[in-house]
Amino acid sequence: MASAPSPPEVPMELHAVNRSKLLRALRHRLKSSSRPLHGFVLLQGGEEQTRYCTDHVELFRQESYFAYLFGVAEPGFYGAIDIASGKSILFAPRLPDEYAVWLGEIKQLSYFKEKYMVSLVCYTDEIADVLRSHYGGPGKPSLFLLRGLNTDSNKFSKPAEFEGMEKFQIDLDSLHPILTECRVVKSDLELSLIQYVNDISSEAHVEVMRKSKPGMKEYQLESLFLHHTYMYGGCRHCSYTCICATGENSSILHYGHAAAPNDRTLNDGDIALLDMGAEYHFYGADITCSFPVNGKFTEDQRLIYNAVLDAHNAVISAMKPGVSWIDMHKLAEEVILKSLIKGGILLGDVDDMMDQRLGAVFMPHGLGHFLGIDTHDPGGYPEGIERPKVPGLSSLRTSRELQEGMVITVEPGCYFIDVLLVPAMKNSKTSRFFNQEEISRFRGFGGIRIESDVHVTANGAENLTKCPRESSEIEAVMAGSPWPLPKGPIDARHH
Amino acid sequence: MASAPSPPEVPMELHAVNRSKLLRALRHRLKSSSRPLHGFVLLQGGEEQTRYCTDHVELFRQESYFAYLFGVAEPGFYGAIDIASGKSILFAPRLPDEYAVWLGEIKQLSYFKEKYMVSLVCYTDEIADVLRSHYGGPGKPSLFLLRGLNTDSNKFSKPAEFEGMEKFQIDLDSLHPILTECRVVKSDLELSLIQYVNDISSEAHVEVMRKSKPGMKEYQLESLFLHHTYMYGGCRHCSYTCICATGENSSILHYGHAAAPNDRTLNDGDIALLDMGAEYHFYGADITCSFPVNGKFTEDQRLIYNAVLDAHNAVISAMKPGVSWIDMHKLAEEVILKSLIKGGILLGDVDDMMDQRLGAVFMPHGLGHFLGIDTHDPGGYPEGIERPKVPGLSSLRTSRELQEGMVITVEPGCYFIDVLLVPAMKNSKTSRFFNQEEISRFRGFGGIRIESDVHVTANGAENLTKCPRESSEIEAVMAGSPWPLPKGPIDARHH
Repeated sequence: MASAPSPPEVPMELHAVNRSKLLRALRHRLKSSSRPLHGFVLLQGGEEQTRYCTDHVELFRQESYFAYLFGVAEPGFYGAIDIASGKSILFAPRLPDEYAVWLGEIKQLSYFKEKYMVSLVCYTDEIADVLRSHYGGPGKPSLFLLRGLNTDSNKFSKPAEFEGMEKFQIDLDSLHPILTECRVVKSDLELSLIQYVNDISSEAHVEVMRKSKPGMKEYQLESLFLHHTYMYGGCRHCSYTCICATGENSSILHYGHAAAPNDRTLNDGDIALLDMGAEYHFYGADITCSFPVNGKFTEDQRLIYNAVLDAHNAVISAMKPGVSWIDMHKLAEEVILKSLIKGGILLGDVDDMMDQRLGAVFMPHGLGHFLGIDTHDPGGYPEGIERPKVPGLSSLRTSRELQEGMVITVEPGCYFIDVLLVPAMKNSKTSRFFNQEEISRFRGFGGIRIESDVHVTANGAENLTKCPRESSEIEAVMAGSPWPLPKGPIDARHH
Repeated sequence: MASAPSPPEVPMELHAVNRSKLLRALRHRLKSSSRPLHGFVLLQGGEEQTRYCTDHVELFRQESYFAYLFGVAEPGFYGAIDIASGKSILFAPRLPDEYAVWLGEIKQLSYFKEKYMVSLVCYTDEIADVLRSHYGGPGKPSLFLLRGLNTDSNKFSKPAEFEGMEKFQIDLDSLHPILTECRVVKSDLELSLIQYVNDISSEAHVEVMRKSKPGMKEYQLESLFLHHTYMYGGCRHCSYTCICATGENSSILHYGHAAAPNDRTLNDGDIALLDMGAEYHFYGADITCSFPVNGKFTEDQRLIYNAVLDAHNAVISAMKPGVSWIDMHKLAEEVILKSLIKGGILLGDVDDMMDQRLGAVFMPHGLGHFLGIDTHDPGGYPEGIERPKVPGLSSLRTSRELQEGMVITVEPGCYFIDVLLVPAMKNSKTSRFFNQEEISRFRGFGGIRIESDVHVTANGAENLTKCPRESSEIEAVMAGSPWPLPKGPIDARHH
């Protein structure tokens, strides 16, 4: 492989565009409620964290809203936008002299001004003075700070704090919904970054597929992925802890954390479910591939795999602006249930099954979520959009209608999870649907998930993820075919 | 390379031995102050953290004191030791039913009892009741909680908190110094883990050396190291953020963080200074190798390299129980200064230079630090041991005398750091020492550090790190020789 990677230069216009978008939306809101177009948006960037009481510094990753507006990689910054003039101001920490010995050159403010394409850079101990001197309006200047609920974590963002705050009129409510909504619809510059991390992550998934063999450890697949995306893609962070689940572990939806740390040995005949995505300049990919570790699907594996793939493809084909994400979730469930009926695992009528929410037994998670600077990008439940209450749908991270420019994961799955399956097989309302004899074969099977990152276009949807998806493609790639497969009839590829 | 790695099984006796050692020391202390041998040591393990307001979960790493005593990988635990009986009790979090769907099987308490070799496992909501029921003494049971200063971070450890604490007599002062002192002297089981991470990290350093080439990016060296230690060594964590500094960056002591993120391109003629160590079952390595990225030392590079190597070797040869670490630091300075005099860079008498603390201009950091579960393992400055105040020595993380069983890094360095060098060259007390013409050649050179992890034995010291150290060894390995080099005369190796 080449020794010189060429990850893209990121144009800082990306963040200037993000700021303009916010400014437009915020001014619009102020105007429509007859408020003056004065004051400042002020965000506080993240700080480096140390581990417990030690001096072990965790690798810093910028807070996501701050990253969205300013793109700053360094810790300890604040950023402001002057609502009247549209000027952007960064506030850099004033570093002590010994920083130069231990941590590197102390950069001039002009360095950050040029690097981040802002109007002005000052020090963080000057925030109150600088903002007041820029203020042209009457009375106390308004400060729009970020406070609001993250509907995935149920946590609140922490509004900026600085010395001299009492000299401002604080608005804690206006900014969060507007800024969050800006993040929901991606710009072209954002899309090209998300495409890049999808490309390098897809490539890494293919690399991992090719190297997977019975006898390996799950964490070796993680290591291969991380190495490929960093070595060849310049991705120092990943979007989330890698889920490298094989065999029965593939039915554990968020496997891979410290208490289930990707430490099983791959067996011949196992399915592997690998949910891994890289991050580049804050933007992430979120991709799942499922494949047989020995390179050849069994009939049972192919049955479940194709059920999920059909759902994945049906959803992407149906996606376009105006479509309800709840409907897409139900479509995925329906396609999977029909395949299970066709495969003889389930018995009865799919509409009856849908009424009983049987789909949630096999796919307890939501169909997908917004993706961007956060893997679970915010904005899924703005005011007025309710979270559904029934099984399966209640796990959805958004129940919105699709809009052009959204990027959302499409990740149907079909899992055989004892703690869901056994009660459903006993439940008087659902037991009749199970072909008890057939399904017993699938206990311990694990699960399949196929996850792509999809951009909603004006008329449809574009899949940004470029992994082998057909079972035949997976088998060909694992047997050594190049990816993408050479053009030509399927038979020609294999022989 | 082999696809099946064989990282060692870790015997949980390791932590049982750690507990026994604490128990002995604590009982001794209580007895000597005529206090009853009753009550409990109670530690709270770490919790998973999410990133800012999001649901992005950081990969969990156990708090180090808790890891030392109990070896528990999972978050949310507490652990107790009954001082009277010596029994160990773990308290596991009571997990909600849906954990089984999202995060994996909910383990029985007996699973943890067996896995961690403790006397008893209960739930965290039972702490007060269980401890009180185990208490045989009169009055309120005593609880020894962990509160004390980390002398590297200047932060305090956080004492355990739980419901029902008011039913106990809290002692916040006794435990921390005793437990910290236990961690200073390593057991044989700890030493064998530290040897293992040294072996795999040394191997990875060699791999990185071999693959380094002009044109690569610094972060590619990081990626190669991380991949080797995880893929072949099972090391999911590293001990600290990798420092992959090349060219002038090699004079930035803690390079590699988010604001200086290993993103420079390697040039022909650069020196590389790579400070990287893996962690396995909590115990870490901390190793620095310096080498020319094109595989061949220039004369200037060899001069500085050998100055540092001589210091490294002189220190390890002089180390044994009873030796003062301050004296070792000074020895390293003296050896380096003498080499710089011999090389014509400095002029004058080494004793005069030592009096003026000239060594601290070239090596502003301390010679080394304790190493164990933390990279900067605690215990460097227990009560009664003072931190030196003069330049260079004030950076030491310990000024103690060596004891058998300590593991300490030996990491002399020689750097050309403008913000230190320029003032020293102008200072009336030190300017005379500089051969201004010679030293101008070294502006922008960067620096060299050589760091090994050294175990203090009964009569001397054992170097646990197995990297090529002689400049000829480095050149041979980078030219393709196996490591360790085949036995035989140097000439035979090269031809």
